[in-house]
Amino acid sequence: MKCSKPNFKIHRRARLSSSSSSSSSSCFSVSAVVTKEEQETLGEISSGSDCFNFKAYMGEKADRVNRALDESISVKTPPTIHEAMRYSLLAGGKRVRPILCIAACELVGGDESTAMPAACAVEMIHTMSLIHDDLPCMDNDDFRRGKPTNHKVYGEDVAVLAGDSLLAFAFQHIASATVGASPARVLAAVGELAKSIGTEGLVAGQVVDIASTGAKDVGLEQLEFIHIHKTAVLLEAAVVLGAIVGGGSDTQVEKLRKFARCIGLLFQVVDDILDVTKSSEELGKTAGKDIVADKMTYPKLMGLEKSREFAEELLAEAKQQLEGFESYKAVAPLVALAEYIAYRQN
Amino acid sequence: MKCSKPNFKIHRRARLSSSSSSSSSSCFSVSAVVTKEEQETLGEISSGSDCFNFKAYMGEKADRVNRALDESISVKTPPTIHEAMRYSLLAGGKRVRPILCIAACELVGGDESTAMPAACAVEMIHTMSLIHDDLPCMDNDDFRRGKPTNHKVYGEDVAVLAGDSLLAFAFQHIASATVGASPARVLAAVGELAKSIGTEGLVAGQVVDIASTGAKDVGLEQLEFIHIHKTAVLLEAAVVLGAIVGGGSDTQVEKLRKFARCIGLLFQVVDDILDVTKSSEELGKTAGKDIVADKMTYPKLMGLEKSREFAEELLAEAKQQLEGFESYKAVAPLVALAEYIAYRQN
Repeated sequence: MKCSKPNFKIHRRARLSSSSSSSSSSCFSVSAVVTKEEQETLGEISSGSDCFNFKAYMGEKADRVNRALDESISVKTPPTIHEAMRYSLLAGGKRVRPILCIAACELVGGDESTAMPAACAVEMIHTMSLIHDDLPCMDNDDFRRGKPTNHKVYGEDVAVLAGDSLLAFAFQHIASATVGASPARVLAAVGELAKSIGTEGLVAGQVVDIASTGAKDVGLEQLEFIHIHKTAVLLEAAVVLGAIVGGGSDTQVEKLRKFARCIGLLFQVVDDILDVTKSSEELGKTAGKDIVADKMTYPKLMGLEKSREFAEELLAEAKQQLEGFESYKAVAPLVALAEYIAYRQN
Repeated sequence: MKCSKPNFKIHRRARLSSSSSSSSSSCFSVSAVVTKEEQETLGEISSGSDCFNFKAYMGEKADRVNRALDESISVKTPPTIHEAMRYSLLAGGKRVRPILCIAACELVGGDESTAMPAACAVEMIHTMSLIHDDLPCMDNDDFRRGKPTNHKVYGEDVAVLAGDSLLAFAFQHIASATVGASPARVLAAVGELAKSIGTEGLVAGQVVDIASTGAKDVGLEQLEFIHIHKTAVLLEAAVVLGAIVGGGSDTQVEKLRKFARCIGLLFQVVDDILDVTKSSEELGKTAGKDIVADKMTYPKLMGLEKSREFAEELLAEAKQQLEGFESYKAVAPLVALAEYIAYRQN
């Protein structure tokens, strides 16, 4: 099965094991059985001196991304719009997208500093899509990450404009702040990022998602379209942008694109699984958000067990794309990020 | 008075005359007295064999811009969002911004084809700002150019997303479709365009405009801020993008930037004058939109006569920036466009 064109034919596979010796990166390989206990081992398994310490890596990278985001937008005139942009951009989150961008850049031999403007730009686009998706005319969400959504604090007008500003500023930031990459590469990054937002990316996913919410006849193809466009495409952009500005060859960029497509879809399949698992575990409390919203999900469509198998396949396929990259140290973050996406609990 | 930092000290000046011989481009110089009759002469004065035919020029350029816009976005899956984008993008209009872009490119020796993607991108951004400004949470307009606004036809959710898509696609289009310019120049164009949209451009203008509507203490400085950001900055981007991709020197680009700042502010001053003039002429009909919306305007702040004088000064200052460009043929379109902006009736 190729992530570039998944055929969704599910094969029964032996589950990855925490003691698996067949893994090319056994040092940080963890069980595919999604339990809280096992997920918590993710940081611990990296305690060996030769091993990659994923927890420390994520912490350090996220700190530097947060600092770069903070510095990218200061409060100037007019203050309200800058505050609104910063409110959502600096609201926390794991910074998975920017870290993927940096990791891909470093994998192909580039510096973190070269990837940072692109990494921040990807997070600006992600934030912008959340602000607009939360609007009353769309998903009408009052809270995001435990805080009132942007329009609840600043009003709908400013929220729309804060999203627009972040969208535009992402391109301004890449174009003006990237150092250590040729203009041709930076321009290619601009094109890739732009493509991930519009009718071939986030917007397409949101349009079809809105149209299919509550519909009874949503099939696997449509579900896949939504997830690929709402989630996978921006993760793909994050990785590809990093690889491009980092100086990756065409072959490297395309291998990393395939890797990103797999983990992008994986991200959403796991999201759907978590939504069901949580609601099952928390019986008597609020049911899963997708169920409430009457949204189609992988577990609904193919069952929980087959969804998990599909997730395993995507993870394996993602890892396969990383074969051929020489340095263990450089490949470790992306493998660990893929596993983190597979085994996360929120 | 410099457009880069207008001091708004109004001097009494002799009005430009249709028979003025002092104009460096007397062939298409027209009276600054804004009357319908005189405005209509704009096309006719160019009938001499050596003269520049502005009407024909605008018609031909607009046709090619419309064709390029039409070809830039076709209806693909998902159809609704593409239709919504095309509905507003192809709704007509004079295409002043893209033609300014092309004219600036040709003035510095570039080809129309090199400027066309940037010209279309500027129009996409203009269209996006109209779609979002018309939303119920902003200006709440039901009609635009005699047609129902985007959200009245496609719903608020799709209208927000159509704007987002156009914003992103503008960058995708410049990055992928520009030929005949180096990546460094195209990247510089990306940065300039992005800057004109966010908190240093359109968004800043709209935020302050919303905040000051109905306020009693709006001064000249605030009015200028709104107009420069809501209107002038995108006109500046149009001209500067054309000059950059066309291969203009730094000096040429900066002269054209000053030219564009003057005509950008001029555009809005004339808009304000027309709003008052029309409402005065059409007594008994709907009053001027700015008056209804209780918006501050130049005529309100400095009176009609002084506003007209200010418009004349801006036009003179704009024309001054074009001195030093050698070719009469190449400079003619920008002079005529500046005069068109000064003397238009709608």
